[in-house]
Amino acid sequence: MKKKKGNTIQFLNPPSILSHAAVGGKKEGDGPLSSEFDIISDDDYFGKNSWEFAETSLQHKTAMLALDKAKLSTNSIDFVISGDLQNQCTATHYSMRLVPSAFLGIYGACSTMCESLALSAMLIAADYAENILCGTSSHFCSAEKQFRFPLEYGGLRTPTSQWTVTASGFAIISKTESPYKITHATIGRIVDKGITDINNMGGAMAAAAADTILNHFKDTGRKPADYDLILTGDLGVIGSDLLKDILNEQKCDIYPNHKDCGMMIFGKNQDVHAGGSGCGCCASVLCGHIMNEFERGNLKRIAVIATGALMNPTTVLQGESIPSIAHLVTIEKSPN
Amino acid sequence: MKKKKGNTIQFLNPPSILSHAAVGGKKEGDGPLSSEFDIISDDDYFGKNSWEFAETSLQHKTAMLALDKAKLSTNSIDFVISGDLQNQCTATHYSMRLVPSAFLGIYGACSTMCESLALSAMLIAADYAENILCGTSSHFCSAEKQFRFPLEYGGLRTPTSQWTVTASGFAIISKTESPYKITHATIGRIVDKGITDINNMGGAMAAAAADTILNHFKDTGRKPADYDLILTGDLGVIGSDLLKDILNEQKCDIYPNHKDCGMMIFGKNQDVHAGGSGCGCCASVLCGHIMNEFERGNLKRIAVIATGALMNPTTVLQGESIPSIAHLVTIEKSPN
Repeated sequence: MKKKKGNTIQFLNPPSILSHAAVGGKKEGDGPLSSEFDIISDDDYFGKNSWEFAETSLQHKTAMLALDKAKLSTNSIDFVISGDLQNQCTATHYSMRLVPSAFLGIYGACSTMCESLALSAMLIAADYAENILCGTSSHFCSAEKQFRFPLEYGGLRTPTSQWTVTASGFAIISKTESPYKITHATIGRIVDKGITDINNMGGAMAAAAADTILNHFKDTGRKPADYDLILTGDLGVIGSDLLKDILNEQKCDIYPNHKDCGMMIFGKNQDVHAGGSGCGCCASVLCGHIMNEFERGNLKRIAVIATGALMNPTTVLQGESIPSIAHLVTIEKSPN
Repeated sequence: MKKKKGNTIQFLNPPSILSHAAVGGKKEGDGPLSSEFDIISDDDYFGKNSWEFAETSLQHKTAMLALDKAKLSTNSIDFVISGDLQNQCTATHYSMRLVPSAFLGIYGACSTMCESLALSAMLIAADYAENILCGTSSHFCSAEKQFRFPLEYGGLRTPTSQWTVTASGFAIISKTESPYKITHATIGRIVDKGITDINNMGGAMAAAAADTILNHFKDTGRKPADYDLILTGDLGVIGSDLLKDILNEQKCDIYPNHKDCGMMIFGKNQDVHAGGSGCGCCASVLCGHIMNEFERGNLKRIAVIATGALMNPTTVLQGESIPSIAHLVTIEKSPN
């Protein structure tokens, strides 16, 4: 049923992506992928009265939409696998208390979408479950409040900083057949190259992305040209350049078909400096635009690498560097 | 290889617990389980200069000890599965960046030990791995600083409050045979009965523990008397009483063989009010005392239920209640 080599699992009977949903906020609705979201909300509070519960509401709405699109009720879901950026994964726990399924909480910072997809595929392929609901979210205002400054303070942003996306993406991974399969998962390891600048997370995460991508090619014997698209989560402009530099040194050229969700979700005129970031960046671009591209017949086989900066504001103030991680899954449209 | 019913997985070819290690702080060394720890440190800073890195050092020391006792190097570990209570699971990420294995980060608050054991057993039983390093930690000082008040403030503690344990427990779950097997895992769901008192986490978690225990008995057809010991994680005095009340109403009497790690780790003279708590409580009691009891021939079959309060200090201040979760694993000594 599966084959493991190095850190890569190949699913010989690959699980399906049965449905996918993406919901975004106002700024995401002003961006180039606006029409690719299922819902764009003009209300960044999503009907609630705190940023914490705005994100909870956003995440719940997206998860329910993924269920609706799969024509499943929560009773058909064996496991929920999710997490988010808020301390104690608040958005996830408060949204998923409304779902009566067994729950496995994960924390992978912005690598969460691929960690949840990889674990879901592993549990489905091993017959532990029929259907798993997986996904994540992020919210600009809850993230700024928690990781940086209160919005009212109006802190200046450095050119390397990225803008946390207000969005959520969820998918149902299933034994039920669909044309879209998760064929491999390469689980990342924690990489720390000593970057201490909390405003250069793309730079910190690039090394982890490179490690996982190189492991994936080594484990599978594949090369960059075997994929229509190599999609990183939220490296942004600086992290993406650094990733290509690191990979080029290893004679691995992903340039022709690399894209980064953080560089896709906002337009150049949207003043987001180095690009988008946050768990919801990769989640919503993948569960919106990218899966739509599969359905339009424009993609056949991709590798998605969600990258997470595993730092904590306190330890960074203590002078520590930023450990990072990247998990990779491959998605393929089955030929028939 | 496995059978799933409800939220319970039965491992027909159950993974082994190859080794276990527990490290504790000074107060834990003054308690009744003192001699059951592999190491008791008189230095609550564990050689570091911040509480965050004290816990990092504690966790790393415990993980390395579990590896040593299994005579394995980090190269033999396929996955690390762990998490902790610090925001962004800091202790875990900074300790596990020293381990070059594939890493899956989880967040389950004080349910983390059983979530990591359950996931490890699932991945081993499904042939995704040979050896998985799993565990967690907590530290009184890092937890107080983050969740409550700075230590210097000297805040009063309510009678229902619990004392976060300074300890860590790690285990190696393996395909390699040992006499100690994980035979079942019952994955919990998020339960919220409306408790809003952040100083009564045992009360909030009791409902989640009851839900998972009842599901376990329903799914397996077993009854409380089938276990030598039904061990909850850190319900403390108040949560344990509440758990028994809830279960008695459902005609499920666990009283004769129930124990709670939070009530075992400290003595009555240690001024901890309702008992111990924190991820490290269940982890260190299980990976120390309980596994030692198995080895001394005093236990044959137990159910461990680690319980987690999934609240966030901000949302509790916003008036929200405390969602909780409990995951259960059963451990059995094989007859031969």
